[in-house]
Amino acid sequence: MNFCSKCGSDNLIKKVPPGDNRPRAVCGNCATVHYRNPKVVAGCLPVWEGKVLLAKRAIEPRKGLWNIPAGFMEIGESVEAGAMREVWEEAEARVKLLGLLAVFTYTSYDHVYVHFLGELVDGKYGVGEESLEVELFSEEEIPWDQIAFESSTFALKKYFADRKNGTMRAHYGAV
Amino acid sequence: MNFCSKCGSDNLIKKVPPGDNRPRAVCGNCATVHYRNPKVVAGCLPVWEGKVLLAKRAIEPRKGLWNIPAGFMEIGESVEAGAMREVWEEAEARVKLLGLLAVFTYTSYDHVYVHFLGELVDGKYGVGEESLEVELFSEEEIPWDQIAFESSTFALKKYFADRKNGTMRAHYGAV
Repeated sequence: MNFCSKCGSDNLIKKVPPGDNRPRAVCGNCATVHYRNPKVVAGCLPVWEGKVLLAKRAIEPRKGLWNIPAGFMEIGESVEAGAMREVWEEAEARVKLLGLLAVFTYTSYDHVYVHFLGELVDGKYGVGEESLEVELFSEEEIPWDQIAFESSTFALKKYFADRKNGTMRAHYGAV
Repeated sequence: MNFCSKCGSDNLIKKVPPGDNRPRAVCGNCATVHYRNPKVVAGCLPVWEGKVLLAKRAIEPRKGLWNIPAGFMEIGESVEAGAMREVWEEAEARVKLLGLLAVFTYTSYDHVYVHFLGELVDGKYGVGEESLEVELFSEEEIPWDQIAFESSTFALKKYFADRKNGTMRAHYGAV
């Protein structure tokens, strides 16, 4: 941020606003405080007949690596609607949500992944525009060394551990 | 947003950028795409000897109404760290997190509440700067018609229902 988005001034000062306890970018001209906020990435791990659906990324970052279908949540939608939308956009699949699977913060990127667990509605899927391949994997088939993001590894590991234990819980973690 | 925060131009055009499917504010001068994103509100419902800890808001919006301790997640922290920080700031209490309680989207405000369930570490609490009162409530004592946000009502109802059923699950919802 080089200019105040409200008044256009370049007089941005990093300081702690009154009543706050952290430095923010404050406009020296119109006094607007510009907050920065982490972004929500909404995703869903679709399951079908014991396998999980992953998508190989066609775009950077981590192009060519496998990921749980997920993407930035949009203004005006719920996290769950965002997760279902992303499954459709990346893997051309419809899912019935089964519950929350994981909330995972990437503190270095300021991304919060909210991953649901879902079931494919009819077993159908395809290759969305942002994907190179989309495939169902059994636990043994998962290419663990080619997973795009640690958020996906975290959610996948938790899912398979829960399945072994016959439990289903929502997990949280951070890196 | 009246001016591009990157180059200072007032030539902002609402249009669908290449490869996108939604209109965004795009700078006509430097081509920067300005995305808007929902904000994460991190919170925690602290429990102690069967009661839950709520804080009466000292600030707008919903000043004077009771709420689960929560606030905007900061850059650089995890959601769980944000929730624990908010409990400290609003209710001067330390909590041990027990798990995820609810993810609730306010689509009209573009806020995503991530509420944890926590246990007071030592039963101690106080009145933080942003609170007027902080109090432990049994289920029967909760002032349901004076709860600040539907996200809190949702999380409280789910918590008490789960407790009756002897289960503990993470819930999601939206309004």
